[in-house]
Amino acid sequence: MEGSLLDGVNKPETQEVEDMTVLEKKHSVVIEAPNKIGKEKKFKVVVKVGEHMEHPNEPGHFFEWIELYADDTFLSRIHLTPEKTHHKLITEIKLNEPTKLVGRARCNIHGVWEGEKQIKIE
Amino acid sequence: MEGSLLDGVNKPETQEVEDMTVLEKKHSVVIEAPNKIGKEKKFKVVVKVGEHMEHPNEPGHFFEWIELYADDTFLSRIHLTPEKTHHKLITEIKLNEPTKLVGRARCNIHGVWEGEKQIKIE
Amino acid sequence: MEGSLLDGVNKPETQEVEDMTVLEKKHSVVIEAPNKIGKEKKFKVVVKVGEHMEHPNEPGHFFEWIELYADDTFLSRIHLTPEKTHHKLITEIKLNEPTKLVGRARCNIHGVWEGEKQIKIE
Amino acid sequence: MEGSLLDGVNKPETQEVEDMTVLEKKHSVVIEAPNKIGKEKKFKVVVKVGEHMEHPNEPGHFFEWIELYADDTFLSRIHLTPEKTHHKLITEIKLNEPTKLVGRARCNIHGVWEGEKQIKIE
Repeated sequence: MEGSLLDGVNKPETQEVEDMTVLEKKHSVVIEAPNKIGKEKKFKVVVKVGEHMEHPNEPGHFFEWIELYADDTFLSRIHLTPEKTHHKLITEIKLNEPTKLVGRARCNIHGVWEGEKQIKIE
Repeated sequence: MEGSLLDGVNKPETQEVEDMTVLEKKHSVVIEAPNKIGKEKKFKVVVKVGEHMEHPNEPGHFFEWIELYADDTFLSRIHLTPEKTHHKLITEIKLNEPTKLVGRARCNIHGVWEGEKQIKIE
Repeated sequence: MEGSLLDGVNKPETQEVEDMTVLEKKHSVVIEAPNKIGKEKKFKVVVKVGEHMEHPNEPGHFFEWIELYADDTFLSRIHLTPEKTHHKLITEIKLNEPTKLVGRARCNIHGVWEGEKQIKIE
Repeated sequence: MEGSLLDGVNKPETQEVEDMTVLEKKHSVVIEAPNKIGKEKKFKVVVKVGEHMEHPNEPGHFFEWIELYADDTFLSRIHLTPEKTHHKLITEIKLNEPTKLVGRARCNIHGVWEGEKQIKIE
């Protein structure tokens, strides 16, 4: 099973969108949040896929779920339904120290993908 | 266990917020969406709790998850973490006929609560 | 989308396996549990699909999750991974009055299916 | 929040049950599976908590979910209901190479705990 996208956690080999493969563009997990936030101040986080290139959202090929971690602390997971919902986890969180937000999303055909964003404290 | 809030699905006895008990105000499931939408046009839905009166969001007392159905069709479910995330499911959906959106949310102490909103098609 | 298996909750039209269609045989939700149990005595419940005819368990066609309710009270849900896990929810529960156990399972191609089993108290 | 059990992933400091603290005994994640299995042969895995010392299973203090990974590949997650279900994830899987099974479980009061078991191939 070595080398299968269905095993382990996948990441694009580059952060430069123009250098990504089509597969990477479709599956990149993008985290939208401020670069710097106030300590313990609530802020909005969006974890999304299909931002660099549209990903199918149909019964045979879709994202099953998207999850959000603060470093390795579980925060939230949303379960999706193909065709019926969109590919986003939207929530509000608070942090009290510099944190790496980590998003993961599972495509039923191409496995789990991961993206991250470093958040600083003002 | 008859009569326990932990069994079955709870609803406020009234839709008038001022007539609700404190328990009902804290646990009412509120669905925010347009009253009327275009057929197959994407629109935003927010399912939330603690809107009429704040609900605790702490390890010993919190909402575990919130889910959204279109009539009895499952659409989405978000899992929450006490203290760390807020009490909302936010998504975008499309409908092609008049539909009753149904939201459910589970409080670990006071069980599952349900709210609904009828959506018309333009 | 009227009439689509992907909307609402599907059930076989008959309980007689030999009279079921192939689709019904593959998607029937079967609940394995004693017919009669002691009040508040722990017993094992298995909720399974593909019992009357094998259902695919591959990335493009699989059961995403299986859930168990006691009447309309949520008890448990298991999330599955195609190819890697099997199609069963196995748990232990207690009941204190006659209860209809309800199982639901979602196939990504053919929607949500429901089965039930009435449990008596000794 | 540094040092809080509610952040990150907790593990007992020792594998010797008699040397564990009460907190560790109650929250240890135990994986029951054969030490050695046949390649691609289905085998049963049980992921459980409260094995070394009973853990509460009540509305204010309970395990919300238990999950299973093969190395870092997600396999399954079961959502539980306090008082109503037990603390176990039971499934069947196949492996084709030596694998570290990893179980995680979240207690609402004491956070996420992790256990593991190495599986050899015959």
